[in-house]
Amino acid sequence: MGNMEKQRIEELQKLLVQENVDFYIVPTADYHSSEYVSDFFKMRAFLSGFTGSAGTLVVGRQEAGLWTDGRYFVQAEKELDGSGITLYRMEEEGVPTIKEYLEKMLADGQTVGFDGRVVSASFGKELEETLADKHIKFAYEKDIAAQLWIERPAMPVSRLWIVSEESCGMGVLEKLSKVREKMSEEGAEHLLISKLDDIMWLYNIRANDVEHNPVALSYTFISKDAAVLFIQSEALTEEAKAHFEKSGVTCKDYGDISDYLKNCEIKGKVWCCGADSNYMLYKCVQERAELVDKENPTELLKAVKNPVELENIRNCYLEDSVVLTRFLFWMKENAGKVPMDELAMAKKLDAMRSEISGFLDLSFETISAYKANAAMAHYSATEDHSDSIGAEGLYLVDSGGQYQGGTTDVTRTIALGAVTDEMKMHFTKVACAMLRLADAKFLSGCTGRNLDIIAREPLWESALDYKHGTGHGIGYILNVHEGPHRLSWQYKHGKKETVLEEGMIVSDEPGMYVQDSHGIRTENIVEVVKECKNTYGQFMGFRHLTYVPIDLDAIDIRYMEPSDVKKLNAYHKQVFEKLAPHFQGTELEKLKSATRAI
Amino acid sequence: MGNMEKQRIEELQKLLVQENVDFYIVPTADYHSSEYVSDFFKMRAFLSGFTGSAGTLVVGRQEAGLWTDGRYFVQAEKELDGSGITLYRMEEEGVPTIKEYLEKMLADGQTVGFDGRVVSASFGKELEETLADKHIKFAYEKDIAAQLWIERPAMPVSRLWIVSEESCGMGVLEKLSKVREKMSEEGAEHLLISKLDDIMWLYNIRANDVEHNPVALSYTFISKDAAVLFIQSEALTEEAKAHFEKSGVTCKDYGDISDYLKNCEIKGKVWCCGADSNYMLYKCVQERAELVDKENPTELLKAVKNPVELENIRNCYLEDSVVLTRFLFWMKENAGKVPMDELAMAKKLDAMRSEISGFLDLSFETISAYKANAAMAHYSATEDHSDSIGAEGLYLVDSGGQYQGGTTDVTRTIALGAVTDEMKMHFTKVACAMLRLADAKFLSGCTGRNLDIIAREPLWESALDYKHGTGHGIGYILNVHEGPHRLSWQYKHGKKETVLEEGMIVSDEPGMYVQDSHGIRTENIVEVVKECKNTYGQFMGFRHLTYVPIDLDAIDIRYMEPSDVKKLNAYHKQVFEKLAPHFQGTELEKLKSATRAI
Repeated sequence: MGNMEKQRIEELQKLLVQENVDFYIVPTADYHSSEYVSDFFKMRAFLSGFTGSAGTLVVGRQEAGLWTDGRYFVQAEKELDGSGITLYRMEEEGVPTIKEYLEKMLADGQTVGFDGRVVSASFGKELEETLADKHIKFAYEKDIAAQLWIERPAMPVSRLWIVSEESCGMGVLEKLSKVREKMSEEGAEHLLISKLDDIMWLYNIRANDVEHNPVALSYTFISKDAAVLFIQSEALTEEAKAHFEKSGVTCKDYGDISDYLKNCEIKGKVWCCGADSNYMLYKCVQERAELVDKENPTELLKAVKNPVELENIRNCYLEDSVVLTRFLFWMKENAGKVPMDELAMAKKLDAMRSEISGFLDLSFETISAYKANAAMAHYSATEDHSDSIGAEGLYLVDSGGQYQGGTTDVTRTIALGAVTDEMKMHFTKVACAMLRLADAKFLSGCTGRNLDIIAREPLWESALDYKHGTGHGIGYILNVHEGPHRLSWQYKHGKKETVLEEGMIVSDEPGMYVQDSHGIRTENIVEVVKECKNTYGQFMGFRHLTYVPIDLDAIDIRYMEPSDVKKLNAYHKQVFEKLAPHFQGTELEKLKSATRAI
Repeated sequence: MGNMEKQRIEELQKLLVQENVDFYIVPTADYHSSEYVSDFFKMRAFLSGFTGSAGTLVVGRQEAGLWTDGRYFVQAEKELDGSGITLYRMEEEGVPTIKEYLEKMLADGQTVGFDGRVVSASFGKELEETLADKHIKFAYEKDIAAQLWIERPAMPVSRLWIVSEESCGMGVLEKLSKVREKMSEEGAEHLLISKLDDIMWLYNIRANDVEHNPVALSYTFISKDAAVLFIQSEALTEEAKAHFEKSGVTCKDYGDISDYLKNCEIKGKVWCCGADSNYMLYKCVQERAELVDKENPTELLKAVKNPVELENIRNCYLEDSVVLTRFLFWMKENAGKVPMDELAMAKKLDAMRSEISGFLDLSFETISAYKANAAMAHYSATEDHSDSIGAEGLYLVDSGGQYQGGTTDVTRTIALGAVTDEMKMHFTKVACAMLRLADAKFLSGCTGRNLDIIAREPLWESALDYKHGTGHGIGYILNVHEGPHRLSWQYKHGKKETVLEEGMIVSDEPGMYVQDSHGIRTENIVEVVKECKNTYGQFMGFRHLTYVPIDLDAIDIRYMEPSDVKKLNAYHKQVFEKLAPHFQGTELEKLKSATRAI
């Protein structure tokens, strides 16, 4: 084991000598920093043997190291065995970061290499700064390792489909005009977008090139009077061609982007977001024009859903809620009676969801986690490991779908039988946290940093916490995680925050995790709405999109304020009203009971 | 009326021609952006006739304008009458800012003048940016208007006194060494400080040059091996001279700072905070060295009180609380029986406070405001206008003292008889707001932007708000308003926030104001303390420094959660325990009743 990888590293080292490169970096990314990386882009796994979802390989002429985080230490140790690659356990004491490592290892005037398309511009720029004193050269225009990977999978490509104006509420021409308005405000003549969901949103297209993200590998370069889309020709259906022609969008081949940027006519400043662009394209632009390095204008435009999108989203979330509720009722009824395990339950829920009209895909891999497994971040049951589920303890399910009417995301935790007092305390606090935040009223101008503490308070007052953000934005038939707004309290100087605006949708997902015991998360998606406007300003609030009962069997009223009880009862009343038309007979009785006032 | 000012403006306009200046700016500031401006610095009032505490005069060769805010529109209109000066009502629609005005009025290549010592470096830099395209020159080295003011008051000067190491917990040498550590971290060879309270803190000195701020006009320039203090020679007592000699501090005349900066030996980067430095000195430094433009290192060091300071502060706040409580009991007892008015009550409280051992001064002018007057920000009763007080409605008193053991600040609102249900609702919500924030537990790393909403929630949930921050830091025998931490929710991109640290003290002062009716504010000062540390991190909390009853006559329990009632009762229990040893007989009975559990 590891012999093949050892050989690959040695071959790469020979190439480094040929190419006059001293250290070569292989991160885990596609050309667009997508959340999931398809097989074509798994170069790091091919070279090192380490198959985890996060990690960076750095190969020098004499040595090679792999950096990964705590989730993967055990797996990486196993998979790297025999490869000669040193494992660098990130965040552990005394372990250098990649930047620190390179700073130490590189001699003055040496060369760092990487495929400039899989390294983000922001990381590249940081590296430039770190290594500035050593006059390090950057070789980023060549995927040096590519020739070693003979049986490399094909680059993903799927056929585009069009989201009609009726179902997304705004045509391409109107979107382009809004984008160009923002360009004028910033004094930019051109705009380069590399962010796939931004491009899909702008052109009302979708595809299937990234797992669970309905996007196509693409770039776009927009000027005052032209919009060029770089896309693989195999993606272009006749329908898509007609759609682009109607919208004044010119298509060029995906691979032509660099050449185009090097040779096209550039009249003024170019807007290019360093955080979302890869290093190679960023450098192309930087060499030719003054840059506006700001968040893409599409980012905020996409985040504020229009009335048509909102209407579809509300319906879509209701249908999704019906199915999840039905699934949870079945689980509670059958746990301990029917043999079941985590993976089977995930598959069952996925199958039920796929019956919903307009279903396209899951929005991410369903997390189905029983007891202590639910305490592990990023846990997923597999064919090799799937715990069986019985009539006791807590079960957590975090799931969502891609539909013609939107993208959903929802988490519920349920008691399958006896649970401890501590579990009930944690469950109740998490429920209060979710409901208090969803019920918050706040003045326009607030960002997620202001609001996050409302969800954390019930936990913090007992010196408890969850080590993740409270919420993220969600796409419309797009990525389940989208910016630019988020709910998180942490402070980093200079980091931009986004004010919460009417029409944004955001997850509200506090949790509580106890290692080796249990994990709880209750996640609703809410939309930002306007409340009253008076002498103090415009008040804002949230409105639930998710209507799924919160398991009363795990609620302990002693941990609630009277106002929390009111909030829970009010929410359950809404849940009943929304779901009742979809239930009948004993299921309706169950719904009544599950949403009863306490 | 206004004739004299008209003549002064005309004379200034002649000087502008002589000096080749096109527009001349006269703000309201001393050389250190102090909160209060002494008579010597009231040039704007001398020239324009407008005596309000905030305003900027801009004089062109043909015209003159005065910018002030809403508090002063009526007064400015009256006082400017006949002067020929146009009033610019700030923030009103269509009214240009000073920068917009200058941008519009100035022709290419013209000159803007101002006394570079009374304009902050940050405003100067903004002006440079705004006017960059017009190639405007800046004449800032001369106080051109000075020669017009024949009978100008003397520059304030008072004799320094020393805060002994026993009473402030840290000697000058130790403070200098901490400052130099921070300089090393930033790679700065020198540090210029213009902020008066920072200089007082660093050298353990105090004086009386600014109203209510126990500071001396001064600058300091610190190098790795030298510390030079620029101070008026009249301030230097024999004791002070000996103190400086012992601490290795060299004294030079206050007026010599510019010359010194132009000629002294400079070996590397100079740390100079643009927000706290005046434009003239900033330019002096900028012409000679690379700048580190960051918050002074003294700012954070000063904000985190040491154990000796904290011990003194706790005692000092207790004595201050005793006196305020006694005063409030007297008010409630005698309102409607004894003739009283706002100003007389302020004087009465001031007199009582001055009896406290170690009393030096008030920390700001006492705000004594009855009924609707309390709804006005910055209201102060005067000899000319002081409403009489009867046995009904709400009375607000915001006050504090400078003592040998610290600087206090406290606000209470009391019912002097019948109050409306709405008033009770507002009063109760404000009390809950103050107590909830004071009782909050939070993870280390939180800033005031995270916490502010805890105080606002009880108001925001009813679409109410107070248009001021929730809290500010407070000096130790220093300025009642000090940074760098604060409690405020508002977001401005790029603005630095300060994490709340153990040993900081901060005000917790929510309020509620209804125009023409009533104003409520309840202000405690709290210290930041460490709570438990566990797997989630270090939890932090607050501890009260202020122990003054919250008037139960204005509380309506219907607006409280059970946990609010608990908090109020717990606070009152503490108040009783702390104050009881200082009260006897019927006063003790009153204390018992005022702090009874509800």
